[in-house]
Amino acid sequence: MKAFDRIDRRTEDPYSSRTGSETRLVERLDPVVWGSAEGPLSPEEVQRFDSDGFFVKERLFSESEVAEMMTELERLPNLYDESAQEVVIEPGTGIIRSIFRVHRTSALFEKISKDLRLVDTARQVLGSDVYIHQSRVNFKGAFDGRAFRWHSDFETWHVEDGMPRMRALSASILLTDNTPVNGPLMLIRGSHWHYVRCPGRTPNEHYKESLRDQRYGVPPKEALAQLVDRGELVQALGPKGSVLFFDCNAMHGSTGNMSPFARHNVFMVFNSTQNTLQSPFCGLPPRPSFLAERDIG
Amino acid sequence: MKAFDRIDRRTEDPYSSRTGSETRLVERLDPVVWGSAEGPLSPEEVQRFDSDGFFVKERLFSESEVAEMMTELERLPNLYDESAQEVVIEPGTGIIRSIFRVHRTSALFEKISKDLRLVDTARQVLGSDVYIHQSRVNFKGAFDGRAFRWHSDFETWHVEDGMPRMRALSASILLTDNTPVNGPLMLIRGSHWHYVRCPGRTPNEHYKESLRDQRYGVPPKEALAQLVDRGELVQALGPKGSVLFFDCNAMHGSTGNMSPFARHNVFMVFNSTQNTLQSPFCGLPPRPSFLAERDIG
Repeated sequence: MKAFDRIDRRTEDPYSSRTGSETRLVERLDPVVWGSAEGPLSPEEVQRFDSDGFFVKERLFSESEVAEMMTELERLPNLYDESAQEVVIEPGTGIIRSIFRVHRTSALFEKISKDLRLVDTARQVLGSDVYIHQSRVNFKGAFDGRAFRWHSDFETWHVEDGMPRMRALSASILLTDNTPVNGPLMLIRGSHWHYVRCPGRTPNEHYKESLRDQRYGVPPKEALAQLVDRGELVQALGPKGSVLFFDCNAMHGSTGNMSPFARHNVFMVFNSTQNTLQSPFCGLPPRPSFLAERDIG
Repeated sequence: MKAFDRIDRRTEDPYSSRTGSETRLVERLDPVVWGSAEGPLSPEEVQRFDSDGFFVKERLFSESEVAEMMTELERLPNLYDESAQEVVIEPGTGIIRSIFRVHRTSALFEKISKDLRLVDTARQVLGSDVYIHQSRVNFKGAFDGRAFRWHSDFETWHVEDGMPRMRALSASILLTDNTPVNGPLMLIRGSHWHYVRCPGRTPNEHYKESLRDQRYGVPPKEALAQLVDRGELVQALGPKGSVLFFDCNAMHGSTGNMSPFARHNVFMVFNSTQNTLQSPFCGLPPRPSFLAERDIG
């Protein structure tokens, strides 16, 4: 791997990745906090998001709101056809790992996607109006919840979905307590300030595999080690009802869950209306809209 | 699974397991702390070991001692034949996962196995003279260190090795910092007071498979959930040089390691000289002596 590089701003795609060339760590061209809009976050929280790439807002949703969402999770699979691609099933076990586009299928999650505790935070950080780029529930079951490899969401959203710049964030609502032992999300503090050009080339219809186990867009060990050297590896912990906000380019992953405590989260991804999708930068057809909203209404 | 049962003391084998009957949680018949011998542990530490089933003695070995052991780890594979069963290799990757019987192959680890900081602690807890039942190094590499399933060591040592009673303990010397993010050992506090009769029947030469991925002697989820209900799931953490002492029947396991920080430990298992091995309780031939010492010298 080459040492840290500055992006040549004259290049056509500053965030090119999986183009068959070697792995590179390059600087981020975009701000993390866009402008200085008013919103629910204190100046200290904004500053922390800017430098760390994430923060946890504890108990943003009440116990009764969490209970309502947990009940909805049980109902959720019934809202989809049996063969629906939105429902990602673990090969072999038949266990549901993720369900996508919940803000379009569930009235409750549609309401959550418009909740001002989330939306106004996204607006404040992204400095513009926002829309839902992707929504999903991730189920990490007790005892045998599977790991998620290290990745930057933006890398995939850019390469496979055509998201031009880093102007999106995720809000992950913790529906169960996230503790050190139930496979919580791990993030590399400060990693969002760098972009890792990943090796390989995106295969066609990569998403059919990547939703179960991502193989392309996974940074090599050397790049991860460099990011951790420059930052810090931390677990995002909090009681249920807390919300983890994290930048689209924050490097994250999670280990398996061997504990008897399930870990279920709802993700709402907010993108700036100034950053709507173009053609995918990998040159392949775009992924289905349940993964990347193109109709922003 | 049946509810908690008292062992019928008239039964031939109070710790029978994998006999084809259903999973049961039964009481431990043996003390945890045998007698009240003097030793390196304070009365509070002894009490904690008794109630929790483990404790971490921070920085029991100095930085230079750890450095010496880390250097020895690199040399260690050369001390074995290429086909030696003592060296457990991960299928596919060729990565070394464990090396057994290090107290017989390495002069340094022989010295460690006799170190009074370990031996006197074992004598104090077990209330008798002790010997090394098993020694090994576990390598958990950075980025893709593999998980170890939940298990009680004693269950295997009893069923497959013929260890009659619970009168053994492990000392795990942490050769790298063990933090929440590098796949540290997790233990269920208080679990050592119960014994889980596991389902299934031990296949012949089970160890050839189980050293890579244990399938028999793994308690079902319901039993684990009950143990966690009665106790608490905790990570054993500490800086390098610390030693985790844990009872032979403490339920433990560990998740994979996705961090850039390797986690290597040396295990010395001390058994009481009053508790030497009999024929395996599963009725199969004993496992090789690199897994279970029969010649106590």
